[in-house]
Amino acid sequence: MKIGVFDSGVGGITVLSELRRRFPGLEYVYLGDTAHVPYGPKSPAQIERLSRDCARVLRGKGVEALVVACNTASSLALPAIREEMGAVPVFGVVQPGAQAALDAWSDGSPVLVLATRATVNSQAYGQSIRGGNASVTVIEQACPLLVPMIEEGWIDHPILHQTIREYVESHARAHSAGVALLGCTHYPWIQDAIQKALPGWKVINSAQAIAELLGKQGVVDRADRGRGKVEWIFTDPAAVPAFAKKWVQE
Amino acid sequence: MKIGVFDSGVGGITVLSELRRRFPGLEYVYLGDTAHVPYGPKSPAQIERLSRDCARVLRGKGVEALVVACNTASSLALPAIREEMGAVPVFGVVQPGAQAALDAWSDGSPVLVLATRATVNSQAYGQSIRGGNASVTVIEQACPLLVPMIEEGWIDHPILHQTIREYVESHARAHSAGVALLGCTHYPWIQDAIQKALPGWKVINSAQAIAELLGKQGVVDRADRGRGKVEWIFTDPAAVPAFAKKWVQE
Repeated sequence: MKIGVFDSGVGGITVLSELRRRFPGLEYVYLGDTAHVPYGPKSPAQIERLSRDCARVLRGKGVEALVVACNTASSLALPAIREEMGAVPVFGVVQPGAQAALDAWSDGSPVLVLATRATVNSQAYGQSIRGGNASVTVIEQACPLLVPMIEEGWIDHPILHQTIREYVESHARAHSAGVALLGCTHYPWIQDAIQKALPGWKVINSAQAIAELLGKQGVVDRADRGRGKVEWIFTDPAAVPAFAKKWVQE
Repeated sequence: MKIGVFDSGVGGITVLSELRRRFPGLEYVYLGDTAHVPYGPKSPAQIERLSRDCARVLRGKGVEALVVACNTASSLALPAIREEMGAVPVFGVVQPGAQAALDAWSDGSPVLVLATRATVNSQAYGQSIRGGNASVTVIEQACPLLVPMIEEGWIDHPILHQTIREYVESHARAHSAGVALLGCTHYPWIQDAIQKALPGWKVINSAQAIAELLGKQGVVDRADRGRGKVEWIFTDPAAVPAFAKKWVQE
């Protein structure tokens, strides 16, 4: 079986890693739209157009299911991508992430969504979580500097830790426990640092959630004993950031 | 007289501001390629193609001179832009910035070029400075997190100051004086913070340098007493970052 993983850049590698960990025998086609990354600051019309272009490439590759790892595309372009993919099932990261947060949630504590500014502005996670349980308090916190710091390789740098505190400290002070949902594909790379700034909180990531969902829904045959290879496609191969190259070579 | 100012995004506004300060009577057309910002991580071929597209738009607007405010395009695409602009004179920011650094330089001290990773990798400033005076020690320091912090509005934030120190502290310790050249259009917005981290150093910016050059070379008629308006063009108007809107409305 062949699964497509689509992201605006390299962040979706965290989703691919979770999929490979659970379903090592499958074939994967990873498409990173590095010629147009980041999607976040772009207009919805442009995001839809770029997502359609990528979906067509993956459809041409014969993928049998498509995971949209990019939060921005998952929030703004799922209907357009589904149109391009015809009968191929398409899964975004927002709904599984929201569901995982609800599963981990307990009464009285908030769900804190950490994401890029574009994802926060789209309110996609908030709507999805409140759609599942209207009584949950959702706090959406934009963390726009985390992706640039991760791409710089500062995943355990004092300035990273200080920046995370800047974003989450007031929430940690107001609530001694809660669920923090990593609503950006890059953030699993700094999950430990985020956990450190939110002691007593459960930290959930969408990459794990989508991989679990594919297993549960029977989309993926867990028994598949194929060769387990990955085909990498980047719309601008020269624009793959240095820190990501070790995964791409795998 | 009508001058074009081309940048990949909004950073070139610092160059436009310097031009307007010196030549307030001229007409300006500012083109920010916000649909494709940032240029830095893109491949040279793509940067050339995007720069040509923008040059064609500005030529169609009837500009009589073109300032390429974007350091990446200035480093990698000037020949292509000149081809598109025909007889219209084209000025990049690198050469005037390098010349201003040399003018401020005194024997024995280094020139420290602060820029994005793409500009540093291009070595354009280093080559230009050493081309002017082979005996100058040039240190090129990539500061990839400064643009995201400025775009976040953190222009006097403790984390910004700490990040600047992270980039320049070793140079400040090694040399009690020198010339620091701001080789990125965004950096004039944090010139005070950079000066603070480099006490005793002269801080030079390319935006001032290009504006001075246009006056000196007689490209611009200083006596022009026109209405002094600006036409703003953004390839994706929805992608203009919030912090920049106050200038665009001017």
